[in-house]
Amino acid sequence: MLIIGDRIDATRKYIAQAVLTENRGFIQSEAKDQAVSGADYINLNAAIFGDDEEKRLRWMIEAVQEVTEIPLCIDSPNPAVIEKVLQLIRKRPMINSIILGLERMDKLLGLVIEYGAKVIASCQAQHGAAETTEEKVDIARRLIRLITAAGVLPGDLYIDPLAYSLSTNARAARATLDAIGEIMTRFPGVHTTCGLSTVSYGLPVRNLLNRTFLIAAMERGLDSAIIDPTDHLLYATLKAGELIVGRDDCSKGYIHAFRKGRLE
Amino acid sequence: MLIIGDRIDATRKYIAQAVLTENRGFIQSEAKDQAVSGADYINLNAAIFGDDEEKRLRWMIEAVQEVTEIPLCIDSPNPAVIEKVLQLIRKRPMINSIILGLERMDKLLGLVIEYGAKVIASCQAQHGAAETTEEKVDIARRLIRLITAAGVLPGDLYIDPLAYSLSTNARAARATLDAIGEIMTRFPGVHTTCGLSTVSYGLPVRNLLNRTFLIAAMERGLDSAIIDPTDHLLYATLKAGELIVGRDDCSKGYIHAFRKGRLE
Repeated sequence: MLIIGDRIDATRKYIAQAVLTENRGFIQSEAKDQAVSGADYINLNAAIFGDDEEKRLRWMIEAVQEVTEIPLCIDSPNPAVIEKVLQLIRKRPMINSIILGLERMDKLLGLVIEYGAKVIASCQAQHGAAETTEEKVDIARRLIRLITAAGVLPGDLYIDPLAYSLSTNARAARATLDAIGEIMTRFPGVHTTCGLSTVSYGLPVRNLLNRTFLIAAMERGLDSAIIDPTDHLLYATLKAGELIVGRDDCSKGYIHAFRKGRLE
Repeated sequence: MLIIGDRIDATRKYIAQAVLTENRGFIQSEAKDQAVSGADYINLNAAIFGDDEEKRLRWMIEAVQEVTEIPLCIDSPNPAVIEKVLQLIRKRPMINSIILGLERMDKLLGLVIEYGAKVIASCQAQHGAAETTEEKVDIARRLIRLITAAGVLPGDLYIDPLAYSLSTNARAARATLDAIGEIMTRFPGVHTTCGLSTVSYGLPVRNLLNRTFLIAAMERGLDSAIIDPTDHLLYATLKAGELIVGRDDCSKGYIHAFRKGRLE
């Protein structure tokens, strides 16, 4: 599993506060914690700052790159901001995310190729949410065609089918799980990724639902997740999941996590 | 999910001790605990007593039926023993299990029909373990043909594909998960069931692996499990799993379990 660490997201109030006050030590500690906990990428999101997004994101990128070698995932709805910050990034980055109908798509895809970036493409409909498996897979198909036609390799593409809250639709997870299964079967070489927490929104014991959703999604082929790797029980579940679904030869990853005290 | 409570199994030393000393109160408390915890059937196993199996099983059946209305699942490798104890059973029972090549199969299937019993049929090969998905599904196909030809309804049949230890084969769970998926797809109306604990044998943090295996199996269609419903975290995981995989309309079962304090 490719783990995209989701902690440094300014929609979390304490992160926004640390960014606004330029509390470099705090943001750097959030980055280091995720790095030692197994993050493959560190996601950075400053979209909440509106016109100041680029300025705040620049500061975040610089702060994080001072303390870790883990590559960054630039999470922004604004292609103009992504274009501007890409040149600051030292390691081959990830872009989060491309959607259908995005402005400046050609320009952005050109930069993706230039920087050798990986790309998350979200199954977001242009009008309203794509809630059914069919809608999600149809959007995935169009995104894959568009992005690979621009020269991005399928193996650098991570489709996020998006998961909506079970509290408004008890089959919301089901639709996403089937979409993951279909995408992994129909588009060989392309990856899938997903955030976990939206499914449990509005329901009790959210962490239990999030962990459970992760396992069901891995069973359908999910090979990346946007999660908090410092969440002990979630990380333990992910390592158990890799062994259960048959992606951990000789139980090496599971035993290694056990020896590091990460399973309890 | 149909839950078959697995606690009263004399391969557990403290259960064997309670049966040998005829500690009625202890066995009855084990039965009541499982009944209030959500067991749909209470499994009884006395095979370890060899020649005394029938005698011990009779005592167990009487003890348990004194304190609960939950139907029983008679777990024995010996058809002659099953035949003899069936007449003691008050509620429509379950038989655990029928395998290919079983002696007295015709007699046993006749009794199954007579008592309206449900049947667990295990994908056990006649020579050695059936470790691959193909072997498991092939045995399932033969069992289903044999048992339904005798007049058992597909809906009364629970195929157990069996799961072997991941410590000797890191793809053991994968083979069982794929077998569950194929059986549920290829034989509509037939159920699947499985014990969880063998997969984790020889590995650390076994409960974590067992819970994770349960979710992956539910995602593939598993609709019954042979488990300990008094295991809090396992039961919570099962309820979360029902919601995640789309079998809990309006989240009713999940919310109900939360209100009863069963999710934490």
